[in-house]
Amino acid sequence: MEHFTQQVDFILELDRLKAVYRKTTVRDDNNRHENSAEHSWHIALLAQVLSEYAEHDIDLNRVVTMLLIHDIVEIDAGDMFAFAQQQDHEIQEQKELAAAERIFGLLPETQKAIYLSLWLEFEQATSHDAQFAKAIDRVLPVFQNMNNQGGSWLKHGVTKTQVIKRNEYMKTSGPKLWQYVLEQIDIATQKGWLKDE
Amino acid sequence: MEHFTQQVDFILELDRLKAVYRKTTVRDDNNRHENSAEHSWHIALLAQVLSEYAEHDIDLNRVVTMLLIHDIVEIDAGDMFAFAQQQDHEIQEQKELAAAERIFGLLPETQKAIYLSLWLEFEQATSHDAQFAKAIDRVLPVFQNMNNQGGSWLKHGVTKTQVIKRNEYMKTSGPKLWQYVLEQIDIATQKGWLKDE
Repeated sequence: MEHFTQQVDFILELDRLKAVYRKTTVRDDNNRHENSAEHSWHIALLAQVLSEYAEHDIDLNRVVTMLLIHDIVEIDAGDMFAFAQQQDHEIQEQKELAAAERIFGLLPETQKAIYLSLWLEFEQATSHDAQFAKAIDRVLPVFQNMNNQGGSWLKHGVTKTQVIKRNEYMKTSGPKLWQYVLEQIDIATQKGWLKDE
Repeated sequence: MEHFTQQVDFILELDRLKAVYRKTTVRDDNNRHENSAEHSWHIALLAQVLSEYAEHDIDLNRVVTMLLIHDIVEIDAGDMFAFAQQQDHEIQEQKELAAAERIFGLLPETQKAIYLSLWLEFEQATSHDAQFAKAIDRVLPVFQNMNNQGGSWLKHGVTKTQVIKRNEYMKTSGPKLWQYVLEQIDIATQKGWLKDE
């Protein structure tokens, strides 16, 4: 029974990811901020829909699970804006590691080990699965901001160079998508949605 | 290129599910209403965490995909409260079928066919995969309402009989979970969170 109680505790804890808000906004809901739970749902489907563009053989089911769990650590660590300072990213990494230990640690030992290992693989981007998952996670805001007159890019003065750097996983893991992303970045820069510096 | 544009259009359309609100509320976010996108994320993980309780052999990846897509039709049809009148459910079914045709129809033909077929399988609950997916979809509000002093049950005067009927897929697809759900329903009734009639 303890085994099952642990599983229920984990599931209830997940509810809190619905209260972690990102910089991107939901155009069709009065531009309220998007939360990390609904974002995770969106990218899980994005990975499925765009899987044909993966350059390497990937296990799509592992990719989907990585994407479903990758933001859970934000329950403790909060969401960090993608274009924050490098130093802040390093502090964030420590917080997220502790969060992963605590939150996946709510589960029975075997499940904890599986999720923690998958989460680390994503973070460290050490496999083709993780690299494609990261590329997918990062490309969604490109679609969203292009569809929303510049969205969070414009609001926070993001530069073309930052978005290119942020999406570089795609260059090797999904080169056909990369071409498209570069074109979108050019359009966004021409429109003044991204700073050209 | 049209193939890819169709895929992007579908992905952008999905954003609208984040604006479809359910009766359940998010306890840790000032009890605001939960939307169907974040709900779909939550149950996809619930299915993974509780997969050991499936009575029959299931393909967990199909179950997860069913759960990720099953609510997309609400973009057009809206969310219907689980305990609405039978007549309303029948009208809703027609709306949802039209919505599935339109929304999955944004995708290239092959992908449309795959998703539409999976969505229908879930709706009709004709396979073990779909039956377990339905059981998972329906059990999450039990956890949420128990964790939230009766939540949407109490607010909308839901009866014990209604919740038992709503969760009956679990009796055959996850009998061990069914026992737990029955216990929770008894507790909720004693506490006055569910009407006993």
